[in-house]
Amino acid sequence: MIKAKITVTLKKGVLDPQGKAIEGSLSALGFEGVNSVRQGKVFDIELTMDDKATAEKSLTAMCEQLLANTVIEDYRVEIFS
Amino acid sequence: MIKAKITVTLKKGVLDPQGKAIEGSLSALGFEGVNSVRQGKVFDIELTMDDKATAEKSLTAMCEQLLANTVIEDYRVEIFS
Repeated sequence: MIKAKITVTLKKGVLDPQGKAIEGSLSALGFEGVNSVRQGKVFDIELTMDDKATAEKSLTAMCEQLLANTVIEDYRVEIFS
Repeated sequence: MIKAKITVTLKKGVLDPQGKAIEGSLSALGFEGVNSVRQGKVFDIELTMDDKATAEKSLTAMCEQLLANTVIEDYRVEIFS
């Protein structure tokens, strides 16, 4: 059993309206000193396989094909145990 | 300037239909050995303050008040220099 975490974030320079909305809300709630907020996605994935190399290859393929829009998003794969 | 990352994930036991949908799509794409997928959110936040203790307090308050629904979600605050 392999546990992995995939983090998908917008590439630098890509506008993040959701992040901007959160910035506005935080400001409206009275939080000061917030310079920028950018929102991303995180996927906690459990795989039944045990080989880390195979798992990493498979997870990268999942990102390329489904989890991330590689035109505007970056992804990072982390594998635990 | 402080950079922080807030990760918001569903509590254990809370149904994650979005994660289930991703599991189904991965299976349809031919990925085998996917045991479970759970989706969460990640916020990359830049604060103009320099004091880590104040920043952590402020970020925790942001989670409680806006970023996480603490009834069904857990949050984790990480601060980088």
